Amino acid sequence: MTSADFDDLENGSGGKGPCGRVIRWLKAVSAKSWGKVVEAAREGKKLAEDDPRRIVHSFKVGLALTLVCLFYYYRPLYDGFGVDAMWAVLTVALVFEYSVGGTLERGINRMMATLLAGALAVGVHHISTLWGGKVGEPILMAFSVFFVAAIMTFLRFFPVLKARHDYGLMVFILTFCLVSVSGYKDEQVLDMAHRRLSTVAIGGCTTIIVCICICPVWIGVDLHNLIAGNMEKLGDFMEGFGFEYFGITENGLTLSDTKSSLQRYKSVLTSKGLEEFMANLARWEPGHGGFKFCHPWEKYLNVGTQSRQCAYKIEALNTYLNTEIQAPAEIRSKIQEPCTNICNECGKALKELAAALKKMTLSSSADQHIAYSKAAAESLDLLLKIGIWEDANVLETIPSAAVALLLIDVVACVEKISEAVHELASAADFKTEQPQLLQEPVLYEESHVAITIDHNSTDGLPENGSSNGITTNYNV
Amino acid sequence: MTSADFDDLENGSGGKGPCGRVIRWLKAVSAKSWGKVVEAAREGKKLAEDDPRRIVHSFKVGLALTLVCLFYYYRPLYDGFGVDAMWAVLTVALVFEYSVGGTLERGINRMMATLLAGALAVGVHHISTLWGGKVGEPILMAFSVFFVAAIMTFLRFFPVLKARHDYGLMVFILTFCLVSVSGYKDEQVLDMAHRRLSTVAIGGCTTIIVCICICPVWIGVDLHNLIAGNMEKLGDFMEGFGFEYFGITENGLTLSDTKSSLQRYKSVLTSKGLEEFMANLARWEPGHGGFKFCHPWEKYLNVGTQSRQCAYKIEALNTYLNTEIQAPAEIRSKIQEPCTNICNECGKALKELAAALKKMTLSSSADQHIAYSKAAAESLDLLLKIGIWEDANVLETIPSAAVALLLIDVVACVEKISEAVHELASAADFKTEQPQLLQEPVLYEESHVAITIDHNSTDGLPENGSSNGITTNYNV
Repeated sequence: MTSADFDDLENGSGGKGPCGRVIRWLKAVSAKSWGKVVEAAREGKKLAEDDPRRIVHSFKVGLALTLVCLFYYYRPLYDGFGVDAMWAVLTVALVFEYSVGGTLERGINRMMATLLAGALAVGVHHISTLWGGKVGEPILMAFSVFFVAAIMTFLRFFPVLKARHDYGLMVFILTFCLVSVSGYKDEQVLDMAHRRLSTVAIGGCTTIIVCICICPVWIGVDLHNLIAGNMEKLGDFMEGFGFEYFGITENGLTLSDTKSSLQRYKSVLTSKGLEEFMANLARWEPGHGGFKFCHPWEKYLNVGTQSRQCAYKIEALNTYLNTEIQAPAEIRSKIQEPCTNICNECGKALKELAAALKKMTLSSSADQHIAYSKAAAESLDLLLKIGIWEDANVLETIPSAAVALLLIDVVACVEKISEAVHELASAADFKTEQPQLLQEPVLYEESHVAITIDHNSTDGLPENGSSNGITTNYNV
Repeated sequence: MTSADFDDLENGSGGKGPCGRVIRWLKAVSAKSWGKVVEAAREGKKLAEDDPRRIVHSFKVGLALTLVCLFYYYRPLYDGFGVDAMWAVLTVALVFEYSVGGTLERGINRMMATLLAGALAVGVHHISTLWGGKVGEPILMAFSVFFVAAIMTFLRFFPVLKARHDYGLMVFILTFCLVSVSGYKDEQVLDMAHRRLSTVAIGGCTTIIVCICICPVWIGVDLHNLIAGNMEKLGDFMEGFGFEYFGITENGLTLSDTKSSLQRYKSVLTSKGLEEFMANLARWEPGHGGFKFCHPWEKYLNVGTQSRQCAYKIEALNTYLNTEIQAPAEIRSKIQEPCTNICNECGKALKELAAALKKMTLSSSADQHIAYSKAAAESLDLLLKIGIWEDANVLETIPSAAVALLLIDVVACVEKISEAVHELASAADFKTEQPQLLQEPVLYEESHVAITIDHNSTDGLPENGSSNGITTNYNV
């Protein structure tokens, strides 16, 4: 090291010598790594803030493992079970999942599979010792391992077993192999099977107890909230769409000035896999809160499917917010009133349904909004039939007409969602809530009513969005 | 047992005595179980026929486990490693996945995690023995287990780590716990870490060798085929839609008489999760066939996203096949020619793209179909602009107008898919294929051309769907 390098070190700038280059390189690398660490820490903070249960879960896993390790370390486990005691540690690490449903699924699958595979292995070992003799025994053992492994592996392809017992089948293969090759003597095999089952049970039960007793994460509740949240997102879009499409402003600002909040529905389009995964695990959970053991989780999937159908329509509607072919304002304004009514009422209906589901009540308040939206859809239908755009260019009317048709479709979708929610509510015995009675909507009698709408009025909308305001909108 | 019961047994009918009831019950139960067995066998047969690689995979798992078990049984492993030899069996059972990518992901994660966690555990154990003394050592051990488990569990929530190293993090926790609690003496811990690593490596390598050497299932190839297949499904729909919507018949039969085949596109709507899962595993696969090690798998996801966007439009189109509000035939017939052209050309373009992708060639034959479909879209646009339905009821024209708009959107989607495929093809260095030159399509010059279309002609379509026929259709 030259004195120049020392100078570099002292003034911390990194000079021209080879040592200076190394220092500069080290600095650059450490700055880069430090940047990555800071970024990761920020991401971690966000993950923890988004769902603080993640932190709790991490500590729970730490606690369960520490318990089993201490148990093992202080030898009451070790004295009884020898090296096999580590199966308890292994079981905790492999079985502890984020949700109670996940933990129970893995824990029960593991314990049952260990029991069954252990019994089968002991039986096969007994037979092969009896019939095989010194030479035949390993051959019979190898064949049994081969066929059990092949058959169980093939069973993992069955969709029903894949969904519910995939882990169990894997543990079955594993235990069968371990027990059946564990030694020559019958007693040893029996002993091995017994020790393995006991230690797995100790690990499994520790895991399940810690998972359920300390701040349990019920995946059923999460599914319940996901389904309700998805309906809410659709409702948000519908409420915002009317304002956004017709460019309605209040105090100079677009009412839905946060356009990105309209795009939250996108996650509904691809939530099928997640919903099915959650419903599969929720089935394993015992009764908790308002959820019984046999809560009708498959009905949630039904609501999810209907929501997704609605989301596809909304995806189509969304393109008309951003399309280049846009109908002129005067054409749009002719269908503005029924369209914004449909948007408002569907949005409210979806949000009411979501709120009722969240509160686990059988509410009929959404029905009224659906009735209003159907009335608005009929009035829109009638407007289209009487030919409001006769003097306009056909091409210019088409986007608005397409939006109108999609909105009519959305009303049907929302009705189906409502039916699915009601089916779920009655299957799950939700308690009935008395709705506040609103004024009956005045329905159009399709062809006998003379319609006079002030097409230029954009002020007909209820400013506070109250339902009274909306019923008056129907009194045309 | 009465003599009557014996009679029952003999004539096999099940009589009136208590024994008869038991027999009838047993019969009913056995008939039911037999029915279930037969049903399961049928499902198994179907699973095997759908993808015979499943059978091969099952045998491969059986073989790998038998190999390791025999190795263990005949004691060369056992003599070296003692009871720890079972880690080899365990590793095979836990690591062997259906695809090479899956197996490599788990195998490499497991081996790396075992190495790192073993090293950390030995280090922590060394420190705690040095500093802790008899009393402090278990306390330090417990703390280290708690914090390592908690931190690693939290890391599993990071999306990047979750996608690629979830299993590795789990094995890290597991190995750290097992090694650090395995005993009091430093040498024992080091020995344990070493034995565990060696046995895991033996199991992991056996698995990987069997998985790659015997009929390997490359998940990259499956992803490649899935993406190409999805485009083909969309193409099938587009080709069928034109015929179905306009009710075109040939020899008295609807051309697309298998309406269910049109619905195959539905799987594209929800394939996002599967595609991401496959791309994640494909990254682990070494070069195979035309796929290099660093094949641009993320570009496949891009093609998948664009296909899904197109599928959403198709979902909207599909509703017009089944909707109650249907435009009368004479209204539809006015836009029939450009619409069926768009359908045919988009369908062909999608199928060409799928075929080129399957053959791993950079083909420009789809470009011509896209150019034709764009020309058809322009002609459709022009038709709408000049007001072909001026004498018709507005409501009746709307469904057809909506279909027309959606078809124009689909053309844009197909163009985006084509761009994504080209991007993929150039990133993956697909070889260029010389396309057969087709006649240039005659494009409309939008506002300067006088258009005369025989609206009543439904025979203008090429019966064999040849591209020559289609170019003549544009010569209006």
